[in-house]
Amino acid sequence: MSARRQISLGLSMRYLGYHAAAWRHPSADPAAASKYCHFLRIAQTAEAAKFDMVFLADGIGLRTKDEPPGALCRSHQTAELEPLTLLSALAPMTRHIGLVATASTTYNEPFHIARKWASLDHISGGRAGWNIVTSWSEAEAWNFNRDRHMDHETRYERAGEFVEVVKGLWDSWEADAMLHDKSSGLFFDQAKLHVLGHQGKHFKVRGPLTVKRTPQGRPVLVQAGASDQGLEIAARSAEVVYSAAHHLDAARAYYADLKSRLAKYGREPEHLKIMPGITLFIGRTEAEAREKFDLLNALVAPEIGLSYLYGQMGDLSGHDLDGPVPEPPNPLVKSMARNLLALARRDSLTIRELYTTIAAGFGGRVLVGTPEQIVDDMEEWVVAGAADGFNICPPVLPLGLDEFVELVIPELRRRGMFRTEYAGPTLRENLGVPMPPNRYTAT
Amino acid sequence: MSARRQISLGLSMRYLGYHAAAWRHPSADPAAASKYCHFLRIAQTAEAAKFDMVFLADGIGLRTKDEPPGALCRSHQTAELEPLTLLSALAPMTRHIGLVATASTTYNEPFHIARKWASLDHISGGRAGWNIVTSWSEAEAWNFNRDRHMDHETRYERAGEFVEVVKGLWDSWEADAMLHDKSSGLFFDQAKLHVLGHQGKHFKVRGPLTVKRTPQGRPVLVQAGASDQGLEIAARSAEVVYSAAHHLDAARAYYADLKSRLAKYGREPEHLKIMPGITLFIGRTEAEAREKFDLLNALVAPEIGLSYLYGQMGDLSGHDLDGPVPEPPNPLVKSMARNLLALARRDSLTIRELYTTIAAGFGGRVLVGTPEQIVDDMEEWVVAGAADGFNICPPVLPLGLDEFVELVIPELRRRGMFRTEYAGPTLRENLGVPMPPNRYTAT
Repeated sequence: MSARRQISLGLSMRYLGYHAAAWRHPSADPAAASKYCHFLRIAQTAEAAKFDMVFLADGIGLRTKDEPPGALCRSHQTAELEPLTLLSALAPMTRHIGLVATASTTYNEPFHIARKWASLDHISGGRAGWNIVTSWSEAEAWNFNRDRHMDHETRYERAGEFVEVVKGLWDSWEADAMLHDKSSGLFFDQAKLHVLGHQGKHFKVRGPLTVKRTPQGRPVLVQAGASDQGLEIAARSAEVVYSAAHHLDAARAYYADLKSRLAKYGREPEHLKIMPGITLFIGRTEAEAREKFDLLNALVAPEIGLSYLYGQMGDLSGHDLDGPVPEPPNPLVKSMARNLLALARRDSLTIRELYTTIAAGFGGRVLVGTPEQIVDDMEEWVVAGAADGFNICPPVLPLGLDEFVELVIPELRRRGMFRTEYAGPTLRENLGVPMPPNRYTAT
Repeated sequence: MSARRQISLGLSMRYLGYHAAAWRHPSADPAAASKYCHFLRIAQTAEAAKFDMVFLADGIGLRTKDEPPGALCRSHQTAELEPLTLLSALAPMTRHIGLVATASTTYNEPFHIARKWASLDHISGGRAGWNIVTSWSEAEAWNFNRDRHMDHETRYERAGEFVEVVKGLWDSWEADAMLHDKSSGLFFDQAKLHVLGHQGKHFKVRGPLTVKRTPQGRPVLVQAGASDQGLEIAARSAEVVYSAAHHLDAARAYYADLKSRLAKYGREPEHLKIMPGITLFIGRTEAEAREKFDLLNALVAPEIGLSYLYGQMGDLSGHDLDGPVPEPPNPLVKSMARNLLALARRDSLTIRELYTTIAAGFGGRVLVGTPEQIVDDMEEWVVAGAADGFNICPPVLPLGLDEFVELVIPELRRRGMFRTEYAGPTLRENLGVPMPPNRYTAT
């Protein structure tokens, strides 16, 4: 084993993969996103390869709009399974891999989230993780009695309080609270059961939680926000951050910024793992990788492709797809429209080429190359201080995972960058992050 | 097979059983209520015996009060796993048995419930059931931003609307909405995806649900309320009712009342199964059954026993437990206090005998006897039109289930009252209740 830094690996397994045309790939079962066996196959493959965790992103509404018309009915981002229900069903069929799902602090209550994730941590023997998000779409607000989604400030204020309440509830029972003394009749030690009694701006939650302390002390906390408030929540509480940087410089700056925030919460930099998302097209040769990339891109229906530009650039369906990208007349989000336009101008992209760039990884970073090229890139990011690991978002599942396991993992191992055995039974042990102390337990 | 009516059987598996001293029984593992393997063993045993379903009751707060002092720390009704998370983890390890859990309409949102139960129905291949409750305890209100629980009227009004929203969301996708046509690029038929657009007094939910139509059309709906509003929700929507009658006459009246309400919703009486709960102490002889009953009752700590009377009768801990039950000075619920007192007077019960009566089945109906006596009783209720089946609430788990399977099920089968094989893979098929049509699908 070399002295190089070992990386953490997560696998994003939502829908049929992170490519807009994933379901049309010859290898894909289009119905798979509603099938348990599909996810079982993926989780077991990822576990055999010693991934730290599988991850399910989430939204609680149909975010996909029918803009331009015809886009919605061509999208596989429409029907799925609820992530926690699914992860729980994967727990008894796996033994080591972490099980991480998203839940929104805007449309949930802390007691439910604390209780469900604590239960998953028990059921899985210490492998649960919660990805904290605040939700952003009107489609979600409409399913939860609101006309508009809350403003960013309020959402993050609520999120910060929400996380503190959940952490408080997870401390309800000290680890040794249970006595189970049949002869005396004492079931637990009442001095070790704690009532939270939280009263804040957004929540009033008394507690205690009715789930005893979990194998990990508390589930692993994951964050993905890039805003200042999101970074503070991450610095204070998260063990993992899924970041979204496209370029090394920006990723390094983000990494340095976030890690520098940990000290004021009494935390060590290595106790939070920053894992940028990447979508990989892997070939034994560059040409083969490019072929795989082109094959999927050719399957992106124009309606779907244009829907990825619609929010920023408006309706481009009247334009020649193989012509230049026009100036958007009334961009909805000016900065994002400007970025897209700058990208198109810099690389002289046509409309089709621009939307393909986004459709290929749902807007995330995409790498096309050989295992050596891909691992060179990963290693560069790790050495440069831009990543502690990566969240792999395969374009098509399970194919993209199989290729990663067959081609990239051996190269990572050859360079001593990735484990050959799990460190222990819990997600915390494999990530190398400590178990948090219970606030009530005397030190 | 005789011509006698076949019954449905459910198994309640919350905590360590339905006896206050369950955890102190020599066979019990006091830590089991937080262990997945405990519930796996129970669900697999119940499935081998061809039970229709396992059931997890629920509360979302610590309802047990420390009244009188010392009661709480002696109670096993304190720590558990969240039911849906648990049932989902049981789904891949079972094949036929129904998976039913409680969720409150007072402290949940319809979109979450519709989505999670639809997911469980997919994951389990059509075995999910939702027991609709409105919650009643202050302890739950305190965990969800409220000082008091909502009044009965408001809770049931909200529940009625909640259930209609959930049913509406479950109809979002018609059964044949998915096209999955790789060549045309059409993922689904947009004419078969429906936006609910619900705007009511308590909820505003647009939809559609992001889970496609489930194997059972929709999960089985279960109700347990006895109030007029609860009965109407059951008559309109439920396929199963867990009833709580102690005496045959009351049970017959309840049964007739509820079944008579179905016609106005266009439903057949046999499409709703009424299943009274029973806690059984089973012996090969009457003496053996009585011995088992006495053994557990002797393990009820006075603090626990008195806590079951506290809410109705006040603090009786100053009194001689083996003396007569005193007149309560300021009963909290006058009618319930009067009932308890009448019971004590009628059977000349001491305080200890009175609380034991309640502690032995958490207030539900208790039978102590041989398999023949127990099946005589069950058959009497079925023949008299008081029950379509029973929800078995063993005093100790898994022991009480094992005894039921070994001793009672053979007697039920001897009389042709219980199946030897499952009718099909879904809970609806085994219960013999039809799959509901999708409201949008032309007939």
